[in-house]
Amino acid sequence: MNNNGKYETLDPADWDEMRALGHRMIDDAIDYLQSVKDRPVWQPVPDEIKNTFESPVPREPSDPAEIYQQFLTNVLPYPMGNIHPRFWSWYMGNGTVLGALADFMAATMNPNMGGGNHSAAMVETQVTDWIKQVMTFPEDSSGLLVSGASMANLVGITVARNVLAGFDVRKQGVQSISKKLIVYGSTEVHVACQKAVELLGLGSDCFRQIEVNEDYTMNLEQLDNTISQDIQSGYQPICVVATSGTVNTGAIDDLNAIADLCNHYKIWFHVDGAIGAIAMLSETVKPLLTGIERADSIAMDLHKWMHIPFEAGFVLVRDAKAQRDTFSVAPDYLERATRGLASGSYWFSQYGLQLSRSFRALKVWMTMKEHGTAKLGRMISRNVEQAHYLGGLIEKNAQLELVAPIGLDIVCYRYNPGGCDTQALNDLNREIVIQLQEQGIAAPSHTTLNGVYCIRVAIANHRSRFEDFDVLVDETVRIAKSLLS
Amino acid sequence: MNNNGKYETLDPADWDEMRALGHRMIDDAIDYLQSVKDRPVWQPVPDEIKNTFESPVPREPSDPAEIYQQFLTNVLPYPMGNIHPRFWSWYMGNGTVLGALADFMAATMNPNMGGGNHSAAMVETQVTDWIKQVMTFPEDSSGLLVSGASMANLVGITVARNVLAGFDVRKQGVQSISKKLIVYGSTEVHVACQKAVELLGLGSDCFRQIEVNEDYTMNLEQLDNTISQDIQSGYQPICVVATSGTVNTGAIDDLNAIADLCNHYKIWFHVDGAIGAIAMLSETVKPLLTGIERADSIAMDLHKWMHIPFEAGFVLVRDAKAQRDTFSVAPDYLERATRGLASGSYWFSQYGLQLSRSFRALKVWMTMKEHGTAKLGRMISRNVEQAHYLGGLIEKNAQLELVAPIGLDIVCYRYNPGGCDTQALNDLNREIVIQLQEQGIAAPSHTTLNGVYCIRVAIANHRSRFEDFDVLVDETVRIAKSLLS
Repeated sequence: MNNNGKYETLDPADWDEMRALGHRMIDDAIDYLQSVKDRPVWQPVPDEIKNTFESPVPREPSDPAEIYQQFLTNVLPYPMGNIHPRFWSWYMGNGTVLGALADFMAATMNPNMGGGNHSAAMVETQVTDWIKQVMTFPEDSSGLLVSGASMANLVGITVARNVLAGFDVRKQGVQSISKKLIVYGSTEVHVACQKAVELLGLGSDCFRQIEVNEDYTMNLEQLDNTISQDIQSGYQPICVVATSGTVNTGAIDDLNAIADLCNHYKIWFHVDGAIGAIAMLSETVKPLLTGIERADSIAMDLHKWMHIPFEAGFVLVRDAKAQRDTFSVAPDYLERATRGLASGSYWFSQYGLQLSRSFRALKVWMTMKEHGTAKLGRMISRNVEQAHYLGGLIEKNAQLELVAPIGLDIVCYRYNPGGCDTQALNDLNREIVIQLQEQGIAAPSHTTLNGVYCIRVAIANHRSRFEDFDVLVDETVRIAKSLLS
Repeated sequence: MNNNGKYETLDPADWDEMRALGHRMIDDAIDYLQSVKDRPVWQPVPDEIKNTFESPVPREPSDPAEIYQQFLTNVLPYPMGNIHPRFWSWYMGNGTVLGALADFMAATMNPNMGGGNHSAAMVETQVTDWIKQVMTFPEDSSGLLVSGASMANLVGITVARNVLAGFDVRKQGVQSISKKLIVYGSTEVHVACQKAVELLGLGSDCFRQIEVNEDYTMNLEQLDNTISQDIQSGYQPICVVATSGTVNTGAIDDLNAIADLCNHYKIWFHVDGAIGAIAMLSETVKPLLTGIERADSIAMDLHKWMHIPFEAGFVLVRDAKAQRDTFSVAPDYLERATRGLASGSYWFSQYGLQLSRSFRALKVWMTMKEHGTAKLGRMISRNVEQAHYLGGLIEKNAQLELVAPIGLDIVCYRYNPGGCDTQALNDLNREIVIQLQEQGIAAPSHTTLNGVYCIRVAIANHRSRFEDFDVLVDETVRIAKSLLS
């Protein structure tokens, strides 16, 4: 082996060149975000660009500047679009500039947040404490940053299963048990909760989907009756999943009433708050969430309405010991010490599935400090105002109609000039959504409510201005007319 | 509402100041990584710094430059240490500079990689194809970037459960089934696999831990007998978890023999390759992994021996349809389109638990292009050489002894001057590990093998030089002598 090979590393061959590249990236990224509103919200990736992603795994090294040029040409111009002020698809945040910079510093330090005694663990512990304070949860509750609400829901429902089953689920499993464990949610519950129930081996047959009222909240009479019948039929109810902010229409289940019911039946009260829980920051929304502070566990997404760059999910569990008992393990190679690197008081890996974990806490820490809870809350309040502003524009326009009540910041509407059947309207509105996207104007998504295809506008966007919704309404009508003519 | 409130955003109040801050971060990060070897590998966080993390959730905004100063003072100086050339604890990679920069650009674009038609999805698809090529898996197999091997193992074992159960597990669950499903691994299997089996509702009682041979590989005769007995006893074997690179000692199970056995019994062959699978890149290690290409699923960690910054786990599944059938859902709000943003051919969220997913593919894409597979493989080969170099130093020193055979890049040794009982040696070596860390010299971790506490050196480190192991041996002896004197 020559000396070259002996000392070869993955560090930059030329540190000054890498430094210069880093500076270029900062300038390009700042320019890119500062001018985002001037570009189309979305555009298709041209075929000649698509083809560049077909090349086989590279065997030999490349110059980082050349790789970055490929990125500038082939990747950066064709984003998903959720950083744009007129992106309202599915349910996503925008991110923040400091949050992105924090991700760079986090990857520079590159700690493994499974546990250990080092500064990053203290940052994460502080962030966890802050979220407890926002949610008015007790100091001795436990929390964990996770990939997103899919994982947060899984963690919460897993703890529910293990606590409420009444036997040692970790050891015995749920195979061959005599009384089937049952979980409840509404028909509007997010599929992430269904996936969690399936993963846990309970089976979707044991996930009772309760019908909703006209406002898309869970019908509590039916919930009560179903639980009661299940008990009579020899099943074992363990958990109700309430939703604070359904994905279709932003409906918030009656959390206090569900808390009462769970208390009555002695079952776990889990809240899927992926969309709405962090709206506790908003003075105007907070009253709608009354009862959430009574939950046994809450799934949250800080990368949605708090605009942390992906990924930043969070799960809160009232009973810290129950969470730890569900996930902790102590093999020899993870044995903890009282001093040194392997000490530290709170090992995050004992509270969830992941052992290796990134330092995602840093972007949350920096963003919460940068803006403070009051301003983060105002961003949420304004999105809700904007939803009602958009609702007003739709109601004033004879050719547009709301398809569902406006829940939180989600507006479902369609173009309906009259005289068309449902199928024709569905096809027309489907094409409107695609044209809004393809013309780079706006990116709403779509959903279907009781057979009615609708244009769905989910406004978790700190860059959206009121006038952006004027644009949406005007362009919806313009495109519709051009399609009909 | 005043105009200020109307147009308030989470964008920088002063873009030029944020740009300047970004440039400072680049300089600081490059300086930090360029000089990492000159600092202690680890040092405890002083109490006065710890106390700064007690402050309550901030209500009002702060200047980003001030927040960054807090980071420079309270966070950056006290890292976990795994970026240092003499960090060999647990099992972690170092990260790369370009990988950290990529995380910044990824968070700047901030796409949600659940699905959709945009450039980032093409980057991730290409990375997935590359890993298939590295692992010599078929083109039509499926793969998914996940948080880490804990999730990758969970995904693999979940697909195994759902395919091999012989009924619709998603719908019916495993509650009240007549034949219990059984999973197999060795006593050296990683706890992540046990956590997966527990999560899936199978119960650790149904996770048979097969004894190991003297080289810490699974005893295949016992595996065969156990499966056979389980079948006779009315159980249903579904999956064997083979380990390529055990966490304690780096042992690689006989993958070909296990593949044969799985083939014979028609059960799922899953490989936990968190440590060793990516060593397919190394010309010297690749032959030891023969048989891995026959796996039904493989869990990998690119943030370990490929040095991608956290998090970058990966799961490969031979049967793409089986993986999709295990995780895909199609609610109205995720309905896909043939054109526009909601089109796209491969929706990543259909292959795992997560719906919202970060653009972690970018750092993998850039790092694989930067170095190429040949060089990435040489880094792995050299770590294995270094393990044997360290082994040689230990064998030459009368006061040191190897506690286990060297597997891959993992060395377990202890200081043993003779004449001490096991307990005294355990206490002595425990203190040596802590002193090595507290004095900032090196960060090995520890484990216990057959009651013997040992100093464990896991060399997944592209910055380690051969002379770093001379330092380790010299300092082990020096500290031991000072403790004994």
